Amino acid sequence: MNDNTQYIGMQSISFSNPAYIKEYYSVVGKKEGEGPLGKYFGQIETDDMFGCNSWEEAESALQTETVKGLLHKSNLEPHSVRYTFAGDLLGQLMATSFGLKSFNIPLFGLYGACSTMGEAISLGAMTVSAGYADTVLSLASSHFASAEKTFRFPLDYGSQLKSCATRTVTGCGAVIIGKDSGIAKITGVTPGRIVDYGCKEKDNMGACMAPAAANTIYHNLSDFGRTPEHYDKIITGDLGYVGQTVLFDLLRIKGYDISKVHMDCGIEIFDSSTQNTNSGGSGCGCSASTFCGYILEQLKARKWRRILFVPTGALLSPVSANEGNSIPGIAHGVVIESV
Amino acid sequence: MNDNTQYIGMQSISFSNPAYIKEYYSVVGKKEGEGPLGKYFGQIETDDMFGCNSWEEAESALQTETVKGLLHKSNLEPHSVRYTFAGDLLGQLMATSFGLKSFNIPLFGLYGACSTMGEAISLGAMTVSAGYADTVLSLASSHFASAEKTFRFPLDYGSQLKSCATRTVTGCGAVIIGKDSGIAKITGVTPGRIVDYGCKEKDNMGACMAPAAANTIYHNLSDFGRTPEHYDKIITGDLGYVGQTVLFDLLRIKGYDISKVHMDCGIEIFDSSTQNTNSGGSGCGCSASTFCGYILEQLKARKWRRILFVPTGALLSPVSANEGNSIPGIAHGVVIESV
Repeated sequence: MNDNTQYIGMQSISFSNPAYIKEYYSVVGKKEGEGPLGKYFGQIETDDMFGCNSWEEAESALQTETVKGLLHKSNLEPHSVRYTFAGDLLGQLMATSFGLKSFNIPLFGLYGACSTMGEAISLGAMTVSAGYADTVLSLASSHFASAEKTFRFPLDYGSQLKSCATRTVTGCGAVIIGKDSGIAKITGVTPGRIVDYGCKEKDNMGACMAPAAANTIYHNLSDFGRTPEHYDKIITGDLGYVGQTVLFDLLRIKGYDISKVHMDCGIEIFDSSTQNTNSGGSGCGCSASTFCGYILEQLKARKWRRILFVPTGALLSPVSANEGNSIPGIAHGVVIESV
Repeated sequence: MNDNTQYIGMQSISFSNPAYIKEYYSVVGKKEGEGPLGKYFGQIETDDMFGCNSWEEAESALQTETVKGLLHKSNLEPHSVRYTFAGDLLGQLMATSFGLKSFNIPLFGLYGACSTMGEAISLGAMTVSAGYADTVLSLASSHFASAEKTFRFPLDYGSQLKSCATRTVTGCGAVIIGKDSGIAKITGVTPGRIVDYGCKEKDNMGACMAPAAANTIYHNLSDFGRTPEHYDKIITGDLGYVGQTVLFDLLRIKGYDISKVHMDCGIEIFDSSTQNTNSGGSGCGCSASTFCGYILEQLKARKWRRILFVPTGALLSPVSANEGNSIPGIAHGVVIESV
């Protein structure tokens, strides 16, 4: 083991040489822009088709716009970024393959369902902290319409949603991670396990993912010997109102009460009382765009000093669900501190 | 940058502290077992359904059997493995989610199409070499029937294949990567870019992937200042006979003739003259199972001293292809040496 890193407890890593978030950018759709976090996003696109001919191409364009905006804001050329860690929800990472190919940056394609931004930041920070790269880019996206088409029904059907259902966010968030200094530092990670409590309700993904979120948060706290109050915020991805109650209950059984410091991006991104979004927002883009806007601005302004960011994923495939299988969850935790 | 690693050229990494392949295991289907490499696989399963009720569950069972075999051969319990890096070809990594959940090992889910074993070994080696873990597991799988159902037509249709088409391998390969010593050492990696020459022929994935393979091999050779003969073998994943000719032509234009040292897992795994496999084998499991059998045995026996292993992926989605898009490719290179 080299001097700069150490592995901790069951599954966590502590970086003695932290990786730094140098810059961030997000692009979201119209409805997200009208929500409570609207002013924090980098760009709000009012055409949900992004000028394209299909929802999948629209999500690719969303990724392309986000990376362009991030590189511009960072004053970087694509060839200055050594590796990209990225993914989306679509089969075979369709949005990522077509959204990122024009940048010609070596790519590690990732699939962690809606936890992908946690996985991408973790691997990006591990790569920079180890000295494998000066500059990497981590990204995740989702699009309401491409996700509905993939996982539920085409929008044209006008299907009704259960009150426990979440609305997939049209959004993409991306960060530049690098060495030595930045607007926030990544000091540790807790990669997640697949956790399956047998939930089969694909309209209730919050309940499907909550056990995985609880598992990762529990291991982060126990691996590092911390209490929930060590963090100004413990931020899950897209559990929504229903999943949040399950998370609190599961962690109370383990002896942790996180209710005072918990925040869920899916609850924050929409105003469910006026925006008709039921249990909240979801999708890779929910936590990614909330992170690359509201969350990083709080850290930059030092309103928060230390957070545990835990994007949460439901390992749902339309085929596996139709074949009667359960929906396992996974959640990847990242410790981020202000500088 | 710490002392143990250095980044090289445009996109390669050299490990001063190599990571070691400690053990390997593979499970394949009946047809693969009857092929020229049959005696090198760990296990040949004659029931293509693996005792399950669907092709997707069969592929999950294939992964489960492979990890069980690998842990048994390694004399390891699941909790001794710190992280898994794994993926498959199905939408939302269905085979991986259900195939690996019972082991309860933290998971980084990966999608690199048929290049996934290269991505998984690269990230596993980067993680171990950096000191983030003592022991990790890297894995990739594919299943003929689940892939045909996803990307082409259900088997029951009895569709005919073009002569340039490849046959998806039913197979899974997995390695344990660790520190200090082993049966072969991983000394460098060259993560790949997305390369798109506009090929739209989903029955000719060899041609779609060859430009990406050429790009990664070219950058590996130029980053490290090596000639093709530096390697005893340069081994691509599943270009097949058609893709191989494209690869040779593209690299000759760049000044490299790799024809004397090239091997393609897709060409080796079947005897196309007697097994009716057209251009050869393909799928994540093609390069993964050939690696975790024939290739590692050559390195273990020191018949080869140094290889460049370059699994090749076609970033093909059934949706993107049906929407008229091209099929970009990606290839991840790993330098492996005998000990």
